[in-house]
Amino acid sequence: MHKRVAVIGAGPSGLAALRAFETAKRAGADVPEVVCFEKQANWGGLWNYTWRTGLDEFGEPVHGSMYRYLWSNGPKECLEFADYSFEQHFGRPIPSYPPRAVLHDYIAGRVEKSGVRPYIRFCTPVRSVEWKPETKTFSVTVKDLVNDRHETSEFDHVIVANGHFSVPNVPDFEGIEAFPGRVMHAHDFRAADEFAGKNVLLVGASYSAEDIGIQCYKYGAQTITFSYRTKPMGFDWPEGFEEKPLLQKLVGKTAYFKDGTSREVDAIVLCTGYQHCFPFLPDDLRLKTNNRLYPLGLYKGVIWQDNPQLMYIGMQDQYYTFNMFDAQAWFARDVILGRIALPSAEEQEADIRQWRAREEELTNPFEAIDFQTDYVRDLLSATDYPFLDVDRVAALFKEWEHHKEAGILTYRDRSYPSTLTGNMAPVHHTPWIQALDDSLATFLAVKEAAE
Amino acid sequence: MHKRVAVIGAGPSGLAALRAFETAKRAGADVPEVVCFEKQANWGGLWNYTWRTGLDEFGEPVHGSMYRYLWSNGPKECLEFADYSFEQHFGRPIPSYPPRAVLHDYIAGRVEKSGVRPYIRFCTPVRSVEWKPETKTFSVTVKDLVNDRHETSEFDHVIVANGHFSVPNVPDFEGIEAFPGRVMHAHDFRAADEFAGKNVLLVGASYSAEDIGIQCYKYGAQTITFSYRTKPMGFDWPEGFEEKPLLQKLVGKTAYFKDGTSREVDAIVLCTGYQHCFPFLPDDLRLKTNNRLYPLGLYKGVIWQDNPQLMYIGMQDQYYTFNMFDAQAWFARDVILGRIALPSAEEQEADIRQWRAREEELTNPFEAIDFQTDYVRDLLSATDYPFLDVDRVAALFKEWEHHKEAGILTYRDRSYPSTLTGNMAPVHHTPWIQALDDSLATFLAVKEAAE
Repeated sequence: MHKRVAVIGAGPSGLAALRAFETAKRAGADVPEVVCFEKQANWGGLWNYTWRTGLDEFGEPVHGSMYRYLWSNGPKECLEFADYSFEQHFGRPIPSYPPRAVLHDYIAGRVEKSGVRPYIRFCTPVRSVEWKPETKTFSVTVKDLVNDRHETSEFDHVIVANGHFSVPNVPDFEGIEAFPGRVMHAHDFRAADEFAGKNVLLVGASYSAEDIGIQCYKYGAQTITFSYRTKPMGFDWPEGFEEKPLLQKLVGKTAYFKDGTSREVDAIVLCTGYQHCFPFLPDDLRLKTNNRLYPLGLYKGVIWQDNPQLMYIGMQDQYYTFNMFDAQAWFARDVILGRIALPSAEEQEADIRQWRAREEELTNPFEAIDFQTDYVRDLLSATDYPFLDVDRVAALFKEWEHHKEAGILTYRDRSYPSTLTGNMAPVHHTPWIQALDDSLATFLAVKEAAE
Repeated sequence: MHKRVAVIGAGPSGLAALRAFETAKRAGADVPEVVCFEKQANWGGLWNYTWRTGLDEFGEPVHGSMYRYLWSNGPKECLEFADYSFEQHFGRPIPSYPPRAVLHDYIAGRVEKSGVRPYIRFCTPVRSVEWKPETKTFSVTVKDLVNDRHETSEFDHVIVANGHFSVPNVPDFEGIEAFPGRVMHAHDFRAADEFAGKNVLLVGASYSAEDIGIQCYKYGAQTITFSYRTKPMGFDWPEGFEEKPLLQKLVGKTAYFKDGTSREVDAIVLCTGYQHCFPFLPDDLRLKTNNRLYPLGLYKGVIWQDNPQLMYIGMQDQYYTFNMFDAQAWFARDVILGRIALPSAEEQEADIRQWRAREEELTNPFEAIDFQTDYVRDLLSATDYPFLDVDRVAALFKEWEHHKEAGILTYRDRSYPSTLTGNMAPVHHTPWIQALDDSLATFLAVKEAAE
């Protein structure tokens, strides 16, 4: 009988796992039976946009943290799949910072072609995973949402790929319960329209705060105030933006900050990050980590040390995204196929410790980019994943960091060459700050505009 | 060894169960060991206000649907506990329609005195309940949120009391994904402040729509539009209110209704009800029902027909609330203590069918009030719960219905006599429409004002 592999989630990480097995199968390998359980009605993970917030039509927590008017905040050339260029998908080079719909089209187009859809059970969240030592299998219980019933079956391997930007981390602040205006976490942010004319406070100093803040500005908010815990983002903000130290309390509409200053605000968006959350896993199989480049417990960032039949994909903090998930998926697959032999527990632990020690010494984004570049390179060297020029990718990431420093409202107007085709991306027909329509049709109208 | 009872939830229903056992214990009965699992950090269920929406600090779905500025929408005399009058708690008669904080104080004060707090494990949601036929016990797995670990233990009985106004029912509407303004379910509504000056659309024609609509009006919304599926609420609305048939689609900010009319709105609140949701129960122990006065599957609305070791409290649509939960809890307790013998399966089925048949013939709220009055009376007759004059309560419910008809913005200014003390409630110091401050201190200032 064939071994069975459960993949949890059909976002970019889970789809990478499906593609990894399918690629081996089409090359003639004898692969296990793969079943992917996805709670949403479609694949794409966070790249699916939903208007829903909180709980969905089945009473399940909404997975999506995606919002309208989101444009890639990194060059698409850094997340290009090694075996499927943007140029191949769209039939021509496109600008470097596409809006959500364009990226979703790229991701979906590739998996559509790979033929993995039949492996996916949609609207089917995983409820529990139980290790059975006597059979050395996992008992996986899922909920069939459409038919409102549970099912349990046995798997030899489980690949956890449900993402970690879905369950918000929501701190409390004195007086927030009586704030007379909207209070929300970035996870529930869907569009800036409702904040036109408002004074918006964004608590946080990472990607969510930065991007939601500038979207609110773009769509007419009156002022944008950021509040940081550790240090300000420090971009050269235009008028109307301000960075304050940590929010201390709220009295009515007045926000008080750690430096003793205060200001009146109309709405609060908590951009305070996400939790790694695996409610379906028992304590001894469950990764517990904050969002960082090298969580402990995972050999090569993938294989659960205490039980190598369990794997995780995409659980790291991310410069690299889609192509890193591919590298991890190919690695996981090859362990399952027996193509990669795992070293002893001691060697695994030493390997993890070495990476972790280096991670703990990182002092700036440029070193962090080099770190993750080396991590991806290390994974790629172990499998037959198509060549990816990670040194070129790393160089692009560093350029991108400089471009953000040069202009937080203009960096998305830049272009970069594909590391696959070498072709330079065209300049978009509209500067990002003026591009209020984020549809695929309008974005791709670049060609017509050029002719 | 003592039998063990798990109570799921420490809201009004679960607390009723705890009080039922404690009352028997203090009267000298030999009672089982009772453990109550509560996901929130405090008791009170929906009567706890939280500013949080969506997922909480532990990544759990927020239980609360409670909002600020909520005042009881029925006379407090209809929900008075038979063994603890409002007058006893507050030391004097108080007005008939108290705000949330006052009701919470009443509920909490009574359970505080009953000494049941030690039975409750807070921050501990139930993850699964599994029936073990070999031992005739339930294996109950819970998550200790604070210590981030799971625990499993065995119980002879499980009482499900987690409420059914917590998981929203959220339908889809054409164009809602592109609506340029806030879209939310009533479950996430926290206060009307953000809707001052706005044109608000409330989809629904039941208590949530009615109450959130008039709160928005009270706190400065420009217009209130209700959209009904079956029939309008039909109150004598003041200017600025409008009732429309069902929402068909949204195009930008324009809402189109089934009668072909349309109007521009700034925000949408889906007051589309709640789901009975028991994600911790296996399919064969799980109540599946819509919100109605007599769900099938429960003998006397309490005992799970297919396994009488499982019980449900508070799963009915409700005119009666706190005192009905008490009646159910006393009944459940007496079945567990062996004081009430369950009839044969056939007799149970016949009893259920009889109630259900009558329920299906109900044609108006007055008949529905009589139905639930008879149901509560039937339960009370089986136990030693203190005397409750349900005929008086029923009469008050009917008066209340007339008072709402007479003035949807003024009915909360009415007074009713307590069925326990016979004392008439005083008139509140401020008409409800002008009472913007809903604090307990301001509400209770009535006495000082009268002196």
